[in-house]
Amino acid sequence: MRTVYVNGDYLPETEAKVSIFDRAFLMADGVYEVTSVLGGKLIDFPGHLARLERSLNELDMKKPAAFDDLLEIHRELVRLNGIEDGLIYLQVTRGSDGDRDFVFPDAETTEPTLVMFTQSKPGLADSPQAKTGLKIISIDDLRWGRRDIKTVQLLYPSMGKMMAKKAGCDDAWMVEDGFVTEGTSNNAYIVKDGKIITRELSNDILHGITRAAVLKFANEAQMVVEERPFTIDEAKQADEGFVTSASAFVMPVVEIDGTALGGGTPGPVATRLREIYLEESLKAAV
Amino acid sequence: MRTVYVNGDYLPETEAKVSIFDRAFLMADGVYEVTSVLGGKLIDFPGHLARLERSLNELDMKKPAAFDDLLEIHRELVRLNGIEDGLIYLQVTRGSDGDRDFVFPDAETTEPTLVMFTQSKPGLADSPQAKTGLKIISIDDLRWGRRDIKTVQLLYPSMGKMMAKKAGCDDAWMVEDGFVTEGTSNNAYIVKDGKIITRELSNDILHGITRAAVLKFANEAQMVVEERPFTIDEAKQADEGFVTSASAFVMPVVEIDGTALGGGTPGPVATRLREIYLEESLKAAV
Repeated sequence: MRTVYVNGDYLPETEAKVSIFDRAFLMADGVYEVTSVLGGKLIDFPGHLARLERSLNELDMKKPAAFDDLLEIHRELVRLNGIEDGLIYLQVTRGSDGDRDFVFPDAETTEPTLVMFTQSKPGLADSPQAKTGLKIISIDDLRWGRRDIKTVQLLYPSMGKMMAKKAGCDDAWMVEDGFVTEGTSNNAYIVKDGKIITRELSNDILHGITRAAVLKFANEAQMVVEERPFTIDEAKQADEGFVTSASAFVMPVVEIDGTALGGGTPGPVATRLREIYLEESLKAAV
Repeated sequence: MRTVYVNGDYLPETEAKVSIFDRAFLMADGVYEVTSVLGGKLIDFPGHLARLERSLNELDMKKPAAFDDLLEIHRELVRLNGIEDGLIYLQVTRGSDGDRDFVFPDAETTEPTLVMFTQSKPGLADSPQAKTGLKIISIDDLRWGRRDIKTVQLLYPSMGKMMAKKAGCDDAWMVEDGFVTEGTSNNAYIVKDGKIITRELSNDILHGITRAAVLKFANEAQMVVEERPFTIDEAKQADEGFVTSASAFVMPVVEIDGTALGGGTPGPVATRLREIYLEESLKAAV
């Protein structure tokens, strides 16, 4: 039985509830972050906190009262649940004024909802998928236009994951106006002639915390990074592909729409970046 | 204190809660309907039920156990809350298997969540706004690509309503690729030289229950209806504008982006359609 956090209380997971009038339940009016835990420590935590603040600001959403205490709550959840490796999920919603209206509730009198819970994932950094790589399908990107804000509007990414599953694959890359935006819950990359190619930041994609770290490490390792959109056709002709996310770190992609990349096995750039990322992130873990 | 319905129970509204792991709370994985109540009776109820079934089917979502009993629950909520005029909100979510994953939970073992509540709106059919009309702004349509499915992904429409409010207006019409899609919570129409123009049905707009009824009544009254997209410029030069929705019925639009339509007062077509719709719908109310 997990202990989870809801608005100041640590509760058994089965008792963790929110009002049916909560704006996240009725209107998807909430934002979230997922932080990895390795060896009991938080990976890239300041990055997640900074992005959370940005998401809240973009939506004129109040910080939860406990914003300054978030590190402490993360650590308490790790402790209470004995998490060695795993994830901590955090969600902030605009709360509820006890009824439903498209107009935002009065920010003076309506407190945001803050929910946090852990997911234990023993051996998270040693995922067997990192050795075999992911098989990807491409699907149309039907999401809303502000993917830079990490909202809970995850129905389409969830549908995308189901489409991949039905196709016998692991994930989907989404395509808009002919170019790949990103994966259902990760940023997308290809490698060609030693060059790492990934879409530039804009409102079209999530500003991945792991993306920022991986690109920094790539630059420091003298790798060439080109930030621009690429097509599925270009991806199929690439030497390698990979994705990055807070929970998968750097994960090789070995097949796109049935076409094997490189030899159909994880490439050297993805493998090297995964090693560097895990090594450096563990050093900086809090 | 309202009595609301949650998964088989009639509860005081303050005790109406759902798990933090509910898919609607975490992933906007839910659909909804809003039915008007006039004189204690339900307006267009079979239409809302049919659309609910379509939304569920499009998302591979199970019908809540009580699907066949929905009319009865609607009536019981009307009775328990003494609703003469108002709204009944119904939401179905994919439920929860007690954790968070992009992959849908097992449909065999995971029951959908069914939530319903009333909103009392005395004099709903005599709204003063029907006499003065709505002032509208235009905004970009940033919503996802399946607006034909009535999901709870309402963050952007909610933001649109706030943009309208800040501009001193009542609502926003959303524009995509140069053409109006619809309002934040209603379908959009203009009238030019006696012709009613409204966007044709597709995945780009909600398939309004009130829209279907109003177009039927318009045809029966020998009015000319043209189903095609229109621009904001065309709308500004129209003789009239109006919107339709389950809660506003037919509501005149008198201003778009600061330009008065017709004389800046509700036009005859909108006014007549509102009368016909209310008259006919009341006759068919259950």
